[in-house]
This record gives sequence, structure tokens and C-alpha cells, in this order.
Amino acid sequence: MSIFEKVHELAVIRASAEVIGWDQETYLPVAAHAYRARQLAWLSSQAHQLATSEAWKKDLEIAESSDLANDPKLTANLRELRREFDRATKLPVELIARDSMASSLAKHAWADARARSDFSSFAPHLETLLEIAREKADLWGYSGEPYDALLEGYERGTSTATVARLFDTMRPAVRKIAAHAVEISSSYAPGLPDGPYPVAAQQLFNAKVAEAIGFDFNAGRIDTTTHPFCTTLGPRDVRLTTRYMESDFTSSLFGVLHEAGHGLYEQGLPAVDFGLPSGSAVSLGIHESQSRLWENHVGRSRTFWEKWYPVAQESFPQLAGFPLENFLRYLWRAEFSPIRVEADEATYDLHILLRFEIERQMLNGGLSVADVPAMWNENFRELFGFAPPDDRHGCLQDIHWSMGGLGYFATYTLGNINSAQLFAAARKDPSIATSIDQANYLPLLGWLRKSVHAHGATLDPPELIRQATGSLPSTEAYLSHLKSRYIS
Amino acid sequence: MSIFEKVHELAVIRASAEVIGWDQETYLPVAAHAYRARQLAWLSSQAHQLATSEAWKKDLEIAESSDLANDPKLTANLRELRREFDRATKLPVELIARDSMASSLAKHAWADARARSDFSSFAPHLETLLEIAREKADLWGYSGEPYDALLEGYERGTSTATVARLFDTMRPAVRKIAAHAVEISSSYAPGLPDGPYPVAAQQLFNAKVAEAIGFDFNAGRIDTTTHPFCTTLGPRDVRLTTRYMESDFTSSLFGVLHEAGHGLYEQGLPAVDFGLPSGSAVSLGIHESQSRLWENHVGRSRTFWEKWYPVAQESFPQLAGFPLENFLRYLWRAEFSPIRVEADEATYDLHILLRFEIERQMLNGGLSVADVPAMWNENFRELFGFAPPDDRHGCLQDIHWSMGGLGYFATYTLGNINSAQLFAAARKDPSIATSIDQANYLPLLGWLRKSVHAHGATLDPPELIRQATGSLPSTEAYLSHLKSRYIS
Repeated sequence: MSIFEKVHELAVIRASAEVIGWDQETYLPVAAHAYRARQLAWLSSQAHQLATSEAWKKDLEIAESSDLANDPKLTANLRELRREFDRATKLPVELIARDSMASSLAKHAWADARARSDFSSFAPHLETLLEIAREKADLWGYSGEPYDALLEGYERGTSTATVARLFDTMRPAVRKIAAHAVEISSSYAPGLPDGPYPVAAQQLFNAKVAEAIGFDFNAGRIDTTTHPFCTTLGPRDVRLTTRYMESDFTSSLFGVLHEAGHGLYEQGLPAVDFGLPSGSAVSLGIHESQSRLWENHVGRSRTFWEKWYPVAQESFPQLAGFPLENFLRYLWRAEFSPIRVEADEATYDLHILLRFEIERQMLNGGLSVADVPAMWNENFRELFGFAPPDDRHGCLQDIHWSMGGLGYFATYTLGNINSAQLFAAARKDPSIATSIDQANYLPLLGWLRKSVHAHGATLDPPELIRQATGSLPSTEAYLSHLKSRYIS
Repeated sequence: MSIFEKVHELAVIRASAEVIGWDQETYLPVAAHAYRARQLAWLSSQAHQLATSEAWKKDLEIAESSDLANDPKLTANLRELRREFDRATKLPVELIARDSMASSLAKHAWADARARSDFSSFAPHLETLLEIAREKADLWGYSGEPYDALLEGYERGTSTATVARLFDTMRPAVRKIAAHAVEISSSYAPGLPDGPYPVAAQQLFNAKVAEAIGFDFNAGRIDTTTHPFCTTLGPRDVRLTTRYMESDFTSSLFGVLHEAGHGLYEQGLPAVDFGLPSGSAVSLGIHESQSRLWENHVGRSRTFWEKWYPVAQESFPQLAGFPLENFLRYLWRAEFSPIRVEADEATYDLHILLRFEIERQMLNGGLSVADVPAMWNENFRELFGFAPPDDRHGCLQDIHWSMGGLGYFATYTLGNINSAQLFAAARKDPSIATSIDQANYLPLLGWLRKSVHAHGATLDPPELIRQATGSLPSTEAYLSHLKSRYIS
């Protein structure tokens, strides 16, 4: 078996785990959860064994030393396979097991600590997870600081210093825009007409929208879960989920637009290369750029609703007397909330800037775990003007750390930055700009397919953005988007 | 790893394949089918490798030679594991590959031949499949005739001669009852009031019925497919499917009752022994006895509808003016159809008797493939009084042979026989009989749990029936059931 046959086998195993994981979130009977975990554990151990085996290593070496390495796609695939192999094999089995055990305990401790708003009972777990994260960072290696090694797993080719520079540039502007947006909102924010917005009508409306922006229902579906997500079960099998509130049809719709953004990326990856780097998404920040682009730049735009609001009014008769202008105000409402997952477009990044700074200092040893709540509250007050009422609404709110997901949060704001830069670059093509202004998004999708999706993971994210937009990631387009939406 | 750890691992792999197979039939996007086949092939090859490995053999031998073999459940498990291992390893890899290739080609050829009603284009495939079936039979070994070795895979401990004796006994009586039922039906068979019977209302009604007969929705679900089935994705995860006709709510309901019968069996198997023989269904004939019992003995009975018809009338207002007596006549309507899957309870077995005889003679070499259509039509005319209009409605109608499923059909009628014998035995307990007469079926389910489900596959089907009912399988209870329903 060549390395490529092995990669295809690995993809089959991983895709099988995705099917089982998807079913777990959508349709699994309650009593079936325990056994399902065994199935996922078995598949994941098969995948790990294969991808870190001596045979894998040998086949990779054979391919690396072959003449075929002149082909640029092949070269990129071998480079990325090598990177993944080295990263996977640098950690000893003992550490992986310790990590998995620690996160499992930490997840339970976190849920309990959050419920009781008691940081001190979570603190020793966070301490352990930080130690493990630093151990991993040391084994993986880094040139700047430990955060670099963790970030590399989510956003390769991007240094912590680069992220910090981007975030520092945008901080004052985002604070100002957010404050302005919240102020306007508090002076005039019309409520959506009362529900019920029947679930069946929402599903029909969402499907129409998803289809119109190019989501291929022959190669995907939308199902229902508590927490919306997008997962890929095979080269032509992309599953989105959303949740429904009968009081507000926009909740499920924006869930669908966000997840469809992820889904369009997955559907746009070269299907023949499924499982290879050239057929895989490159990073969380690029993935998020796609979801945010469709959710915010398309789905929250005036032109989008000039086309779709009449359709919504047909689907939901209570909207008949509610003018488009009011609806747009409703969509663009902004509020300072202590909770990240409830944050709107105008205030979201402030939550990320806060987390990035704290994580970075924790990892560098400049912030002790015991001091996290105080620093959280102080920095939060600086950004938002008030302190969270308690740790449950503060430093205990997110699940990420308890899962060992350190170095992850930054990619949300990188996604926002990239989304704006890509959207602005696409609009430079006059025919794409014209189509967008007519709420026809297929030419935009075509541009994304060509400029982003087609590359898979063959380019590092900054280089991908540079080739697509003409410059490395910068905050310019994003800040100008936020200003024009919330200040103009 | 002991043999039991290996068995549990095998169960995890097989259950994973069931998840993926279930998704394939229920929710898979159309473009995703090709890749799904690769996932199933990988899992099935992993399962096969494990279950036929040298390590498996050694661990089985270690367990067989251990002292633990005094425990009766353990003894039974080791005996059945040995039987499965020997059966799986008696076939050379070359034959398994040839078989799989031949069935794959035959399935396509059959679909095409059936569409064109052209037996001659399917004949060479059937010839190949018969040769392979005989090869397999020779390798597995048999004392009577080749059909024995095939039947053993579906209905162990049951000889072809025994089946033939049972079928010969019932043939004249079933013909007479069927003819009578068809005659009565043609003189008076009221049509169901016009639809639509809305799908949502059917789903609600079916779920109520399934729950009332004891199906545990915490450990199972009902979804929608073209061909109803029941599959088990884990020890507490049983999935039923049905299909909906807006013109007739009884179609989905009887799909659910039939599949829930299978599902109650699966839910009643000892969950701690999942994957072991003691936690597995024993045979197709016993499985079918459970589905037929709930479908026909419970679901088509007068007492069942005395309770449920008022509920149906509330769910479907058009039933308001349609009396229960007419509804029961509608349920008990009988008709001679050339197509097995459209056959009713009164005429179903005639289709099976026909197939059993032809299969048996084909395998024994007493009937050449070229003569199948003529023999089919002649025997069909003898049983039904008319010949099928063409081979598409005759010997080409079923998929089974094209999948290499020779020796399978007999288990449908064995299931009918067993269902009646079990139901009659349960009714011998006066308190169970009283409950049944009040349309309370939980005591009946309790009896089936104890007498059938709890044994898993530790007893051969005939012995299971003997212990549960006091005598080996015989046609008495079944014929008496048919008579009382269709002649009295």
C-alpha cells in the first residue's frame, strides 16, 4: 500500500467516525450514549494507530524520496502529511493518554464548577491542562512562545506575535464601534413581531435560502440539534444542523447561514482528494472566514433582505406589517452581554481579544490560574464598561479550556478578519459586485471556490489570503465593514 | 485480549457498520452513496479479519480448554462461537471474493432482467450463484442435502427434511383456507374511507401503539424508508423504519408493528451480552416469529382494534362513519396476487412453499436453471389457480437469489408457524390470556422476554420453541389460527 492508499483508508475511518458522531448529536436514543462512546473510541484508536504506524512512516519516506515530488500538488500533500505525521508522533502515548484523562475529568469538573459559579474547584484541573499544554508545546517546538505551538494546530503558519499585532491594531476601533452600536441600539431597537414562527415554515424558508446561496442538497442535509454544527461524512456528504425557536425565525436561519458557510467550503474542496491535504480544509480561521462571510457579509446585508424579506413575509404572515427597515434594525441590534455565545457581530471580537490575552499569559506563566478571575473581570470591565456578575458569566462560561482547547479562541476573530478581506477582494471584480448587489451570490461562491476552496490545505492560511486578496491578513477591510454597518 | 474482549471488539465494529448502513437507508444524500460503500466495505473487512484471525482461534481454544466451561451460558457461548468460527473459516478467501463479485454482478443483472422480464439474461448469473452455493455447502458439510448447509446459516438445528415435512403438512390446509379467504373477500371487502391520512398523524398514532406494546423509545426510534426494516446499532439502540401512504394509514402501522416485533426481540436480548451469542438473536425464523406475532396475532386481532379503533377514529376523522366491523373486514381482506411482498396473511405462505420447493430442487440438481420459469408457473398455477402474467411477476420478482440468499425463504413460513405456537403457548397462562383479551400486551411481552428473548442464541431454534411451548415446531397452532381468522 502506498502512502496515498493509507491516507484514503484513514479518511474512510475518520469519515465513519463522523457518521457515528453525527448520529450521536441528531438521532441517538438516550439510552444508547454509553455504547456509542465505545464505537467512537475504537474508530479513533484505529485512525491513530494507522496514522502513526511504522508502515505509514516508511511509505511516507518512500514517497518523499520519489521523483514524483516535482508535481506542486503532490509536493504540498507530502509536506503536509509530513507535518501531520511529525506532530502526531512527537507526543508519547503516555502523554496522549494523560491528556485525554485530564480533559475528561476537567470537562466534568468545569460543568459542575460553572453550575455553582465556583472557579476554585475548576482551578486545579486548569492547572493540569496548562502543564500538559506546555509539555505538548515543548515537544512540538516553537520559536516564539508556547502559544505558537498550540496555535499551529488550528492555524498553521500564523505566529502568536502576528495575532497579537492584528488584535492590538483593532482593539481601540472595535471598542469604539461596539460602544456606538450598543448606544444606537439602546435608543431604538424594534422587537420582532410575536411568534409562533412554525418550525416547518422555518425549515422551508431556510432550505430555500441555503439552496439559493449554492448549498447542494444532493450532497448534504440540514438536521436539528441543540448546538448547530457542520460535519463532513464523506466527499459528497456535508451535514449542517441548526436549532429552532418558535419565537424568532432568524435564530435557525442564521444558524443555517453560518453552518452553510462551513458547508459550502467543505462541498467546494476537491472531492477526488478527499482525505488528502489538497482535499481538506486548511484551518479553523479559514473555515470561520467562510461561515462569517455568509452569515454576516451576505446574510445581514440590506441587499440580501431586499430580496428575501418579501419571501419571509409570505412564510410568516405576522411580518406583514413590520417594515424592512425595522427588521434590519432588529438584525443589527447590539448589546454588551457578558456571554460570548450570545454576542452580536458588533461586540463579538471583544470577547475573543479578552480570551486571547489571558490564555497567552497563562501559557507563558505570566498569569497564575488563581489570578484568572480577577484579570478576566478587570479586562472585561475595561472592554465592556462593566464587570460580569459572577464567574459563571465570566471566566467559567466557555467549555474550550476544559477540553484542552487552548490556542483555539483566536481563530474566531481571525475568521472575522479573513471574511471581510475575502468579501472585499471578491467585490473588486465588478461583475461579482453587481451580482451581490442584486442578491445573486453564485458568482461570489464561484470566486470563493476558485480562490479558497480549490486550494484545500496546500497553502498556509496567510499565503492563501495573500494569493486570494493581494495582501496578508490585515484588519482594514474588517474594520471598514464594521464601521459602515454600525456607524455610518 | 481474551476471546470475550475480541467478541466485544467485533460487536463494536459490526454495530458501527449498522449505524452507517442505517444512515444510508434513511438520511444519506444521493451523491454520497459511492463513498458510503467504501466505508461499509472497510468495516466489514475489519470484522472479517478479526473474526477469522489466528489470534481469535487461539483465544477461543484457550477459553475452550479452561475450567470455566462448567457454566452453562459460557458453555453455550463457546459452542456457538466455535460454530461461527468454523463456518467462517471453512470458506477460502478466494471463494468469498468470488461469491461477493458474483452477487454484485447478479444483483445488477437481476434488476435489469426483472425490468425487461427477461429471465434468460439472469439465468447464467443464477447458474454461477448456484455453483458457488453448492461449493459452500460442500465446504460447510451436511448430512442430508446441500440445502441443509445453507439453511443452517439462517436457521441452525433445522434440517431441510424437517422443513419439508412441516410444509407438506400445511400445504393442503393453507390452500383451502386461502381460497376460502379470497372467496369471502371478493364477495365483501369494504374499502377504507378516502385519505389523506396525514403523515404526521400516522406517526403520532404509530408511536402510541408501539409504546403501548412495550417498544422502548429511550432505546430506539422510528424513521422513514422505502423498505421498512429493523436494525440494531448498539445494545440499547434499536431503529425501526416504515413507509407512509397518505391513502391508507394501516400501511405504515403494520410496517411498524412488524418491525417493532423484531425490535422488541432485540430490546429484550440481554444487553450486557451484546455481541455474544447469549446476547444475540438466534435465527431468522425466530426473529420472524416475533414480528409476525405482533403484526398478525396482536395487530390484526379484534380485541386489539376494539381498543385502538376509537383512537384511530380520533386521529383520522374520516373513519368516524366507518364501523369497526367494516374496518376489520378491510384488514382481513385476502387476494391471490402473483407478488409475494403484496400478499396478505392468508395467502403469504403459498408463495414460500413454492420458492422452497424450487430452491431445493435447483440446489439438488433436480431442476435446471433453464426450467425454472416453467416450473414456477406450473407450481404457481397449482397453488393459486392461475399463472403469473410474466416472469417479472413470477420467478424474477424477488431480490434474494441475486444476492446469493439461497435457503432463506423458508424462514418466513417457519416464522409464521413459530409465531402461532408461541402465541398459543403464552395464552395458556390464564392471566396472560385475560390481559390479551383486554388488549393489554405487556404480560405477553414479559412472557416472550422470559421464554424467547432472554435465551439469546444459546438454544437451537427447535429446542427454544420446545422449551417455550412444550413441543417442537408444528403447524397445528398456526393452521388453527388461520382457520379461526379466515374460515370461522
